[in-house]
Amino acid sequence: MLGQLEEDPSLLLFITTVTTMLSRPAFLAFEVALIVVAVVKLRSSAHKNKKKMEAQAKVFKRVPVADLPKLQDDTILQAMYGKPTKRIPVWMMRQAGRYLPEFRALRVEHEFFKVCRTPELACRLTLQPLERFGPELLSACIIFSDILVVPQAMGMQVDMVPGKGPVFAQRLERPSDAPSRLVMKPDVEKTLGYVVDALNLTRQELKGRVPLIGFSGAPFTLMAYMIEGGGSKTLSRAKRFLYEEPEASHALLQAITDVIVEYLVNQVTLGGAQALQVFESNAGDLSPRLWSDFSLPYLAQIAKRVKQRLGESQRVPLIVFSRGSNWEGTLESLCETDYDTIGLDWTIDPAVARQRVGGKKSLQGNLDTATLYAPSEKIRQEVFEMLSKFGSKQGLIANLGHGMEPEMKPENAKAFLEAVRDFSGVSLL
Amino acid sequence: MLGQLEEDPSLLLFITTVTTMLSRPAFLAFEVALIVVAVVKLRSSAHKNKKKMEAQAKVFKRVPVADLPKLQDDTILQAMYGKPTKRIPVWMMRQAGRYLPEFRALRVEHEFFKVCRTPELACRLTLQPLERFGPELLSACIIFSDILVVPQAMGMQVDMVPGKGPVFAQRLERPSDAPSRLVMKPDVEKTLGYVVDALNLTRQELKGRVPLIGFSGAPFTLMAYMIEGGGSKTLSRAKRFLYEEPEASHALLQAITDVIVEYLVNQVTLGGAQALQVFESNAGDLSPRLWSDFSLPYLAQIAKRVKQRLGESQRVPLIVFSRGSNWEGTLESLCETDYDTIGLDWTIDPAVARQRVGGKKSLQGNLDTATLYAPSEKIRQEVFEMLSKFGSKQGLIANLGHGMEPEMKPENAKAFLEAVRDFSGVSLL
Repeated sequence: MLGQLEEDPSLLLFITTVTTMLSRPAFLAFEVALIVVAVVKLRSSAHKNKKKMEAQAKVFKRVPVADLPKLQDDTILQAMYGKPTKRIPVWMMRQAGRYLPEFRALRVEHEFFKVCRTPELACRLTLQPLERFGPELLSACIIFSDILVVPQAMGMQVDMVPGKGPVFAQRLERPSDAPSRLVMKPDVEKTLGYVVDALNLTRQELKGRVPLIGFSGAPFTLMAYMIEGGGSKTLSRAKRFLYEEPEASHALLQAITDVIVEYLVNQVTLGGAQALQVFESNAGDLSPRLWSDFSLPYLAQIAKRVKQRLGESQRVPLIVFSRGSNWEGTLESLCETDYDTIGLDWTIDPAVARQRVGGKKSLQGNLDTATLYAPSEKIRQEVFEMLSKFGSKQGLIANLGHGMEPEMKPENAKAFLEAVRDFSGVSLL
Repeated sequence: MLGQLEEDPSLLLFITTVTTMLSRPAFLAFEVALIVVAVVKLRSSAHKNKKKMEAQAKVFKRVPVADLPKLQDDTILQAMYGKPTKRIPVWMMRQAGRYLPEFRALRVEHEFFKVCRTPELACRLTLQPLERFGPELLSACIIFSDILVVPQAMGMQVDMVPGKGPVFAQRLERPSDAPSRLVMKPDVEKTLGYVVDALNLTRQELKGRVPLIGFSGAPFTLMAYMIEGGGSKTLSRAKRFLYEEPEASHALLQAITDVIVEYLVNQVTLGGAQALQVFESNAGDLSPRLWSDFSLPYLAQIAKRVKQRLGESQRVPLIVFSRGSNWEGTLESLCETDYDTIGLDWTIDPAVARQRVGGKKSLQGNLDTATLYAPSEKIRQEVFEMLSKFGSKQGLIANLGHGMEPEMKPENAKAFLEAVRDFSGVSLL
């Protein structure tokens, strides 16, 4: 019990508080003693944790990217570039997630963002799906992290509240407040170096089995979180300011873009990321007009600048996932950007997407994630149908239409991966 | 103070509870007395309220629809049928809403669903936008009510929690529980007659100035609320059961459909509704496949059966609003149903919608609601652009792409309405 209290002194404080609420004068002296013990424990525990973290930080040394283990199988990267491959590569958005019992076991001991900030922990979670499914079934790992590390780097406090999602301690009231409230030009290595560390460590541990994907949220999605102060059903506050303060919104989006470019470049040149995905998760709340004005230009800019900065020698495939924006003209606009692959959500028929995109970009997606609640035979049938609809196997990366959900069964994820593997051996009509 | 306690006995109970929590034995007798007083007050207040409601219910008499005031201007109905009109009619989704100070003033005194259940209150709220903007600017009223009155009629308890939205006291765990937990065939007149009363009273008070629109949520949207137990960002529980229990889901959707058909028919034949809109607000979370399987068939069935039941003599235009499902093939499928008008959300370019729908159905929509946060000159410009893109003024009802939001300014709603009026006088290119 005392050991547990040491691990979690808030428990002791909680017990004390409850006891106090139920207090009768007779017990007062005892309670005061308890509170003193709790405070002392809390302070000593915080001190120990800090020491431990510092020790970890000191131990970790990045390996130069050129010296990291070489990739044994680059199928998925070739597919992202649109080159012919022998099989259809596959990964799953949020594949390192709560649906895995081994994930829950590790996460329960550590606060969400502490995991992101601790390379050893992020690395272990990143590898879990590969260890479970094997490189025969799973073609890539994606680093365990969160899109909201960028707002944190810009000076905002974000906490992950269980059962509620991310909550900002203080939201950005309006875009025009950004210059006074945010760190508009943060030191990216200093504030986000821990993600680069996690990538670098994971590359070492992966030993070249499969490629490692890095990622970032896209500017509008991050701005929306900053303004809403957390998740939102309609983004009405965030959208409001696109109309009320268009110039200040653009200035904020540009500042976020600058951070993202630096962050993504570091992920590759220092972390060893072998592909990058940019998540515009909130695109679907925009109108086609707003998307063209406030999302697309920054998405395009990121790809262009990252590609320029990396040059040919350090080039990696770039994927854009603009969720909920499959409007006429959107995919076509993305075809004009420097991304190699377009990630598709579940709301577009793969045949339609292929027809609209042609051979201009590879496509990644897009099984309705809820399909994984179905019996495995049904999953298999839906995967076969989806892959058939994509037509050509060239320039195709199988994936879900959005992230895995905590209630899903790992067996059903496996059924999805197996179906992709088996379909790879089937000739198309 | 005592008067206030009588109005709101929960205040007294709250004070009592707090006092109890801080109790010392000495005050015990006093507290017991307080609790007794609170309970007595509560019971007497509940009794009085009930008497008052019953008195109201007794006073109200429906007027036979044939005897209700005749319509002075049916422009919007003609437009819904696709007939040529002299101007572009317009209304706004959630036009009777919190953005109006007169709405907030009345709502603050009454619990949300109490307003829905009290014809006099629902009528007053329904008329507010017309009284503010006048029939020169606003072409229709929509009855103040909520889509969740149908789950209530089927035996579920739903409360509107301020700042949170609707919350079900106990959600439906899975569709297969429905037959044992829900009233699958409720007496529609008995459980939803109050909406019919509200429509009837509003028709009387409208005195034929503009048409009155009735509405219902669509089956999948209502089922999703039942299963999620309130609003949801992803509908992952609801979608899960479409895959896990497809047969039970269909059975539940059919039961809801049967209630809706009866409910909508009553709105017209007994309430005097002059148009009907069906809201599939949650369509956008479905995949195209799920929408075709679990949404479209029930939407189509409702239009067909309502039209058959009403016959030619009582015919009213039917509008379908399937939000977030502008996928290739969706609008085309809705063209094959018996709806007269397709309501569009803000995520489709009007020109694209016209091209896909052709002259088969009238279109209603679709300004990005957030535009109303912009200065009035910008609103005007966006409205003109939207209406130009619709091309023909025939078969066109101007509206927003989704509901008004509480933070919007009434002046900006007026700027929207004025822009539509002024554009009506402009010839198209």
